[in-house]
Amino acid sequence: METRKVYLTEDEMPRQWYNVLADIKMNPPLGPDGKPVSPDKLAPVFPMNLIEQEVSPQRWIDIPEEVLRVLTIWRPTPLVRAYALEKALGTPARIYYKYEGVSPPGSHKPNTSVPQAYYNKVFGIKRLTTETGAGQWGSALAFACSQFGLECKVFMVRISFDQKPYRKSMMQAWGANCVASPSTETKAGRDILAKDPDTPGSLGIAISEAVEAAVTDETGQTRYSLGSVLNHVMLHQTIIGLEAKKQMEKIGEYPDVVIGCAGGGSNFAGLAFPYVYDKFNGKDVAIHPVEPEACPTMTKGPFAYDHGDTAGYTPLLPMYSLGHTFVPPPMHAGGLRYHGMAPTVSQLVTEGILEPKAVSQLATYKAGVLCARTEGVISAPETNHALACVIDEAEKAKEEGKEKVILFNWSGHGLIDLAAYEKYLSGELNDFAMPEREIEEAEKVLEKYPKPQLLKSR
Amino acid sequence: METRKVYLTEDEMPRQWYNVLADIKMNPPLGPDGKPVSPDKLAPVFPMNLIEQEVSPQRWIDIPEEVLRVLTIWRPTPLVRAYALEKALGTPARIYYKYEGVSPPGSHKPNTSVPQAYYNKVFGIKRLTTETGAGQWGSALAFACSQFGLECKVFMVRISFDQKPYRKSMMQAWGANCVASPSTETKAGRDILAKDPDTPGSLGIAISEAVEAAVTDETGQTRYSLGSVLNHVMLHQTIIGLEAKKQMEKIGEYPDVVIGCAGGGSNFAGLAFPYVYDKFNGKDVAIHPVEPEACPTMTKGPFAYDHGDTAGYTPLLPMYSLGHTFVPPPMHAGGLRYHGMAPTVSQLVTEGILEPKAVSQLATYKAGVLCARTEGVISAPETNHALACVIDEAEKAKEEGKEKVILFNWSGHGLIDLAAYEKYLSGELNDFAMPEREIEEAEKVLEKYPKPQLLKSR
Repeated sequence: METRKVYLTEDEMPRQWYNVLADIKMNPPLGPDGKPVSPDKLAPVFPMNLIEQEVSPQRWIDIPEEVLRVLTIWRPTPLVRAYALEKALGTPARIYYKYEGVSPPGSHKPNTSVPQAYYNKVFGIKRLTTETGAGQWGSALAFACSQFGLECKVFMVRISFDQKPYRKSMMQAWGANCVASPSTETKAGRDILAKDPDTPGSLGIAISEAVEAAVTDETGQTRYSLGSVLNHVMLHQTIIGLEAKKQMEKIGEYPDVVIGCAGGGSNFAGLAFPYVYDKFNGKDVAIHPVEPEACPTMTKGPFAYDHGDTAGYTPLLPMYSLGHTFVPPPMHAGGLRYHGMAPTVSQLVTEGILEPKAVSQLATYKAGVLCARTEGVISAPETNHALACVIDEAEKAKEEGKEKVILFNWSGHGLIDLAAYEKYLSGELNDFAMPEREIEEAEKVLEKYPKPQLLKSR
Repeated sequence: METRKVYLTEDEMPRQWYNVLADIKMNPPLGPDGKPVSPDKLAPVFPMNLIEQEVSPQRWIDIPEEVLRVLTIWRPTPLVRAYALEKALGTPARIYYKYEGVSPPGSHKPNTSVPQAYYNKVFGIKRLTTETGAGQWGSALAFACSQFGLECKVFMVRISFDQKPYRKSMMQAWGANCVASPSTETKAGRDILAKDPDTPGSLGIAISEAVEAAVTDETGQTRYSLGSVLNHVMLHQTIIGLEAKKQMEKIGEYPDVVIGCAGGGSNFAGLAFPYVYDKFNGKDVAIHPVEPEACPTMTKGPFAYDHGDTAGYTPLLPMYSLGHTFVPPPMHAGGLRYHGMAPTVSQLVTEGILEPKAVSQLATYKAGVLCARTEGVISAPETNHALACVIDEAEKAKEEGKEKVILFNWSGHGLIDLAAYEKYLSGELNDFAMPEREIEEAEKVLEKYPKPQLLKSR
């Protein structure tokens, strides 16, 4: 019988993260004055040890023992050969995926929530705040805080809070305090409620509340935590790709194509950056971040300086962006409804190291259903974007008659996000396209900011 | 760093199931005439190859290659050392669990749905019917049928169909046809709807519909599938305990206590029966099936002949039973709301080989929350019964100062059953006790049936 899964033992887990900052040139984040932001400006928001990691030029960074200990709750994750999918597609390609759905909250998110909780803990912080949309990040941070005895406060976008009660219950089971945003607990929330008491909320509002709740705590023992976009988040996620490389090595394989879905960029970067390192060192590997056609940040947006949040509180980051005022259409992959993209991922796209793809919502659910009925796993709506791209690549391999090796990140299961599957199967799901007018709009919004340089890392 | 998880490779998976029927004496199932039912009477309901397995006296039964291939989607499952729970309890006990929540539907159920779908397929069956309450079994059968290209029809108790839309969507994603029961598709359903159009349905009604839909298919290509109670279901689940034994052996451990929650008995038997075999061969091990105080089949019910279903369609089975007319209180562990108990488990209880325990609903959620915040995994409400018993045993070990080894079955995760956690945490959850009057009632219901003999296997 052929072997389906490649495991690592806990002893074989990587002991260091890979920091892509050591290998690329980056435009600095800018303050409101248009000048580079010095790291200490962020001290009220993040603990100093994480800020140091955010700007560290060191290529390999040790994973603390206490972090590894918690990661072993679900790591190392399996590398799986997708035999059944290959057979269904009749492709000569060999398809492998790294399965991150085995974590307690069901996605790759705790790969960074655990070290973030740890670094806050050792810095003396007692309480973390964050925002969450669909709830994946909020539950991952709740889980991590419960492991390190930190309090956790999650501002959850009201419409999700009302529509997705399971995610809220999950956070509560792990001891977190989850409130609907806008809330009456912050000035930002109260101001918005005064104007619009029935607002469904937004991620932008929730970020404002979470940051305010952190910086206004007079004891100084509260900080804010972010689940994507930032350099240290990408760093923590590289354990995915570093494990995958070890696993592929065990069976004598190396990927021709590496694929991951990308919203803020973290699960994609987690798998891809260790292969970016190889690419810098001469390996021939195609790397595709996959985004929704309805939120085509990398494939249609300009590379520009923009705020990471809707309200414009964050520094200006050099990234592909549809403009921080852009409201993505109500597609079901909530984790990919983000106007921007991690600066590190963006930089690598400008250099042609990464080749982004965009897929339609219907194509993603078609891929998700095929994979559920072959590989057996019901995928998160976000991961379905990776699946759609994998199927495209496998079909291309079939046309070309090539024995291509495809590796992708199965970033999470979809057991708590099933509503859209039902809509898709009953023919009620729509596609959304991004109108050209919106792109022009984005460019107009971004016009007033400085332009990032086009840098060449190698 | 201490090792948390013990893995097996796919090559190390057991190649045979353990059949406890080879080692115990059983009262036969009886027909309406009070005489033993001959196996062929069941042929319209189950395929002949599964009926043969149901009555086989063979101790070790080969697992077909095609079944093993599908099981590797998630098996072997990890054996985990519960260091964090041990630490929180300050117990000298070493606690291990077998984690079955990694399967695609999230529980141990596909260990039997996969072989059942396989045997039906090779027997030439095209379509399976079943009933489901909370949805764990229906989704496990939907998953298995999708792997073998069988049609799957699930009759889901209406109240769950309406309250738990995620389970229904899961079945649909795997291609199953799930309808609310009572439905208009069967005579049984139509009769009930005519009398009571607003009925919330019941497992008893759903069984009647599923059996009717199977036996009335004139093509002869439909059969019915059951997820617990029967001998062949227990057989298929023994892969859990057989894996656990290999894993414990790797680290030089052997359990003093083996624990599993028990509703129909299948996840419990899956872990426990291989240790029952050891016990028959001289090993000293305490084995506890754990049930709810609100449905205390083994701890308070009589050992009697009773029907497996509410309507009284099934043969009379020798088992602990609260009477097939007993309606368990509306506690949240839906999988344990069953009036009877697997005949094999029941027989072993009568002989004192198994020592059942009962726990209260509040104790189970207290245990579930402690484990979520230490081990990190949010448990299914059913598994919480095992957790409560484990904590009792670990605390006993602490009082006695004994280095006891405890092994239990973590039968599933609770990610789709979170509502009750929220109620528990906000103090809105109640305990239910089984009133003495109900026991007397049960005895009255069972009076009219023949009495099983008290047999001694060894």
